[in-house]
Amino acid sequence: MRRSILLAASAFIAMASQPSFAKEVTLTLTAKEVSLPIDNKGTMQASWTFEGQVPGPLLRVTEGDTVTIVLTNDATSKNSHSIDLHAARVDVVQDFEAIKPGETKTFQFVATHPGAFYYHCGSDPMYQHIARGMFGVILVDPKDPNALPKADREYVLVQSEVYANPDNLHSIMKSDWSNVVFNGVAFKYDPVHDPAATKMLVAKPGERVRVYFINAGPNEFSSLHPIAGIWDAVYPSGNPANKKVGMQSMVVGPGDGATFDLISPVEGANVIVDHSMSHAHTGAMAVLMFSNDADPAMGRGDLILVP
Amino acid sequence: MRRSILLAASAFIAMASQPSFAKEVTLTLTAKEVSLPIDNKGTMQASWTFEGQVPGPLLRVTEGDTVTIVLTNDATSKNSHSIDLHAARVDVVQDFEAIKPGETKTFQFVATHPGAFYYHCGSDPMYQHIARGMFGVILVDPKDPNALPKADREYVLVQSEVYANPDNLHSIMKSDWSNVVFNGVAFKYDPVHDPAATKMLVAKPGERVRVYFINAGPNEFSSLHPIAGIWDAVYPSGNPANKKVGMQSMVVGPGDGATFDLISPVEGANVIVDHSMSHAHTGAMAVLMFSNDADPAMGRGDLILVP
Amino acid sequence: MRRSILLAASAFIAMASQPSFAKEVTLTLTAKEVSLPIDNKGTMQASWTFEGQVPGPLLRVTEGDTVTIVLTNDATSKNSHSIDLHAARVDVVQDFEAIKPGETKTFQFVATHPGAFYYHCGSDPMYQHIARGMFGVILVDPKDPNALPKADREYVLVQSEVYANPDNLHSIMKSDWSNVVFNGVAFKYDPVHDPAATKMLVAKPGERVRVYFINAGPNEFSSLHPIAGIWDAVYPSGNPANKKVGMQSMVVGPGDGATFDLISPVEGANVIVDHSMSHAHTGAMAVLMFSNDADPAMGRGDLILVP
Repeated sequence: MRRSILLAASAFIAMASQPSFAKEVTLTLTAKEVSLPIDNKGTMQASWTFEGQVPGPLLRVTEGDTVTIVLTNDATSKNSHSIDLHAARVDVVQDFEAIKPGETKTFQFVATHPGAFYYHCGSDPMYQHIARGMFGVILVDPKDPNALPKADREYVLVQSEVYANPDNLHSIMKSDWSNVVFNGVAFKYDPVHDPAATKMLVAKPGERVRVYFINAGPNEFSSLHPIAGIWDAVYPSGNPANKKVGMQSMVVGPGDGATFDLISPVEGANVIVDHSMSHAHTGAMAVLMFSNDADPAMGRGDLILVP
Repeated sequence: MRRSILLAASAFIAMASQPSFAKEVTLTLTAKEVSLPIDNKGTMQASWTFEGQVPGPLLRVTEGDTVTIVLTNDATSKNSHSIDLHAARVDVVQDFEAIKPGETKTFQFVATHPGAFYYHCGSDPMYQHIARGMFGVILVDPKDPNALPKADREYVLVQSEVYANPDNLHSIMKSDWSNVVFNGVAFKYDPVHDPAATKMLVAKPGERVRVYFINAGPNEFSSLHPIAGIWDAVYPSGNPANKKVGMQSMVVGPGDGATFDLISPVEGANVIVDHSMSHAHTGAMAVLMFSNDADPAMGRGDLILVP
Repeated sequence: MRRSILLAASAFIAMASQPSFAKEVTLTLTAKEVSLPIDNKGTMQASWTFEGQVPGPLLRVTEGDTVTIVLTNDATSKNSHSIDLHAARVDVVQDFEAIKPGETKTFQFVATHPGAFYYHCGSDPMYQHIARGMFGVILVDPKDPNALPKADREYVLVQSEVYANPDNLHSIMKSDWSNVVFNGVAFKYDPVHDPAATKMLVAKPGERVRVYFINAGPNEFSSLHPIAGIWDAVYPSGNPANKKVGMQSMVVGPGDGATFDLISPVEGANVIVDHSMSHAHTGAMAVLMFSNDADPAMGRGDLILVP
């Protein structure tokens, strides 16, 4: 399983025909049905994914870019799949339509709005495709590089509900989830609450840590809080114009996202948590450890979405 | 059933005694207990309503207006009813009191705050009166006609929960709804998800479509998203000073409202949806079709609240 | 039971070594397990508390203050306890650690962000400690005394869920609450809905009433509305920079807080309510009575948190 961040590597850049800031970007994704762990012990679940991972690859473009999406539904899939990107203003029927196994679909949009946007499969029944893990994040960085203060580290967190048996459609429609998790796995980055966890998010004191947060749902609302910290800034939908400051928590609905900045004045741990306690205590907690010797590779490049 | 928009038609305008922008408006409403469809197949439910329709008539005044409410409880009603308008700053006991069948009550308030406000019956048990359909929208347009960019089309959407048996008070208090709907009917404007649906909201590409959205509840929160679109602006409570831009979704709690602007650069469909999937998939979806030959009557006059 | 507001009385002020606005404040709290009423009839529940009261004492400092917390777990306690203050940027592991009965713990933080912040016990299982009443409010007043318009009255309201049997951990994790309440007691300030209630919040027409609202959860979201009123201003997290105006309602997630200003132009009652109706109708309502002869002691000093 390759956890790729689809950046310039997959971009076809046609500088000649575009103004200096706007480029053409092609993002290629394959829908794959695979088995993936849902907890740190390695309990497996039949998952539907983009590129075999939950969340799918981090997509990243710049405001003004013309984006071409090339979606292939792997020939081994048993279901139709599609992609619905919240960064796109298009035609839901034509552009977000489902394709059968083995098929490929291409469509285009201009990324007119900066932000942290959700993408997910929209095939029927959509709630099941989301519950099985078919979601990810597309960042549209502001055209103006000074629109946001420079981040020292960046992390992606996607909240979602895990259902014990996602073949039981009724259980999803009744929101009878078993765990609420970040990035597909209960307590994935929380060795404090789960001894089987081996990973944490890290940064140095004084660094500006930017968290791109998406609530994939399919059903539950989130109240995102950094235990022992205060959000320095929150940008609803990730848009720089929507800035709030000094927030203890921020509600992010299912199908929504926001960008959160956090700075710690001291060494020690914060824990990013959905403060709705039944969500937190079944898996929606992530340790962010501030230490002066924090691994410089974390929160950068391929480790913005920590596998 | 007459679907009226209570505008100047019902207004008593006393220009002599008022400054140029402030007028006196009388809004007359009758509480009626009738049977109404809750889905596109025509399944009927015993409803409690304002003017025999769900939602009740769109009320519309201008910031600064002195508003007189004349509420009559129809003589055929079996229950007491009342009206609680979120645009009013009054005395809950005296002004929002319940009246018996055959009675009429009058009270007055100054519409000091612009916005998109909820009105509903407040009679005991209030949650049942709301669950049975006794709600609507009162718009207080800003005094300054340039406070908001000019809208090309306007639509009213009220989200609410339908309970299979609203005589079962316990089911309402447990939020054991059967459907979450817009404007009283599951998938009312969504022929994509319900072949029995015959209506859609429409506009032309490039037009600014303004959606006045109220979440009537009685219990559930909403995360409002336009599939394949991005909210150009969102105004919490409909107040121009609360502007947010480029939002993918916006949480609107029960008993709250907001104004949403949407512009599509292309022809094709968006679907306005509560992105909490169990709400969406039981009825909280509405197609907004953008086409160059969109019916010019839609989203204007009597077709702001599409019957 | 002493309902104290820990202000200057408990503060050690070292003016010599500090700039004029920043002071050193020591706040001393004792965790106590006591029996407390959960309704106006006096039904008792085994509660875990700060200082034997629910909510705990109102803590109040000024932006820039260096705050020393001295927490003692009473020797009679049967459980470990801790304190997690949302106003503090510290190390969750070291500073918010649980202490055993009879132990005392001290830690320090600088109150860098103004606002209305939640504090609560963070001992395992945290959701049970919150459900049993172990929470309160810490206000960090802005350094600039003109950052907010002057309030004439101030009140603290903390929303929480009461569980019939909080020893049943499963019931808390399933959010199977029996009542949603303000300040620990169902309908505590609502003689309209509960004849056993003896208290109300009061103010005079024209006065600016400031409500510091915290949603303690542990699980449920709130949609706070003043029936028959309109929030003149809402400050998410209580930060003056986050001002919204003319709001009918505001969603406050569990673990979050906000500051709400309300002014009535007339005599009469407003009712502050979580407009999610199943929350309201089990106890989350509080009458705010506006009258010209309102008791001048209410909403000031020890009566900001009305016992």
